[in-house]
Amino acid sequence: MSQYNIAVLLYPGADALDFTGPVEIFSAVLSGRSLSAPAVFHSTTFALASPVTAASGPLTLTPNATLVQVRERLEDFDVLVVPGAGPQVITDLITSEDGKQVLDLIKRFAGLEPRSAHRVLLSVCTGSVILGAAGVLGGKEATTHHMFYDMLSEVSAKAGGKVELVKERRWVDAGFNEAGVRIVTAGGVSSGMDASLYVVEKMVGKDAADLAGEIVEFESRQEVVV
Amino acid sequence: MSQYNIAVLLYPGADALDFTGPVEIFSAVLSGRSLSAPAVFHSTTFALASPVTAASGPLTLTPNATLVQVRERLEDFDVLVVPGAGPQVITDLITSEDGKQVLDLIKRFAGLEPRSAHRVLLSVCTGSVILGAAGVLGGKEATTHHMFYDMLSEVSAKAGGKVELVKERRWVDAGFNEAGVRIVTAGGVSSGMDASLYVVEKMVGKDAADLAGEIVEFESRQEVVV
Repeated sequence: MSQYNIAVLLYPGADALDFTGPVEIFSAVLSGRSLSAPAVFHSTTFALASPVTAASGPLTLTPNATLVQVRERLEDFDVLVVPGAGPQVITDLITSEDGKQVLDLIKRFAGLEPRSAHRVLLSVCTGSVILGAAGVLGGKEATTHHMFYDMLSEVSAKAGGKVELVKERRWVDAGFNEAGVRIVTAGGVSSGMDASLYVVEKMVGKDAADLAGEIVEFESRQEVVV
Repeated sequence: MSQYNIAVLLYPGADALDFTGPVEIFSAVLSGRSLSAPAVFHSTTFALASPVTAASGPLTLTPNATLVQVRERLEDFDVLVVPGAGPQVITDLITSEDGKQVLDLIKRFAGLEPRSAHRVLLSVCTGSVILGAAGVLGGKEATTHHMFYDMLSEVSAKAGGKVELVKERRWVDAGFNEAGVRIVTAGGVSSGMDASLYVVEKMVGKDAADLAGEIVEFESRQEVVV
């Protein structure tokens, strides 16, 4: 079974469950039925600076790598996870100097050739607004947290790419972009887990996704709570 | 509206979603309908040593406080969250010198007089095995991750208190113990979020729990995925 590498963006004020949900799901994907079977995915958290204090809690984390380190070997990563945050945190990020490096990284990732059958850009919650600001959602279907549909539309349009907004979904798969990178945007917060199980199913198969769901006792849904 | 303090135990190898799920839910409980309304709960993560590397990822965290600091003002906390881990991590913890301090803290908490209408001991996943080892589940209904029912029964019995095992529930409320502390045990991993929403409903009310669920787009369920 192939091994996959996941890069998980962290930034100050990022919502904790937006990234711990996907990290948990991907960690539970095993290469066999035994709980001691090797994991299929390896996650690397990264940020511009360390430590990072995430919203929710707050929880303070030490990332596994710097953004520069991830950028240097970006083609080694099969999945890039972009979590969301409250609207002010997102606005501050995408208009800051630091944010430019984040947007540039996302744009580069979205332009990479697939290293395997799959390369996936996965945003959670208002993380899709960051994708929109990076200009990678133009003409593509996408969703976000149900309170921030307008923000996603406005930011994407301003970055030069009108998004095809899809409402009340736990995730939207826009399919492959020109470079062959699949773009999946999740709805609010906990939807990141449903979206991750969907990505696991696409990359590894339904059995692996079902076992991961069983391990974390989480059943993927497409219905939305609003 | 009352403010509540939550102490969240961290230890090396603890499962990340077991504690980030509850932290996320409690963080989303607001004292009004606006997203900028003050939070009702304040979470303090604590551990014996810092930093703590949690399973899933792995994610490395800097706790907000030491176990000694939390023990010194234990009566200030309304909720104590005890996350689970893989079975070997749990066995190593509850049989170690460090573990004795953890078990002692749980026993003390379970023996505190309620400071308000509510004091809640909440375990997630195999966290209930730690409660069992602390001897606070004797004669009480409890659950755990569906793969570790036997472990919960055996560890609890060995600690001198036979547990009334309840299977295939996302949480079990054992009601109040002799000291007036409510003991809630969640099922596996993601069940901690369902259990937390239940605790919010008991402590703050259904409207607050519903709004928190809406903010994180998570609908509490009692069905179990096994």
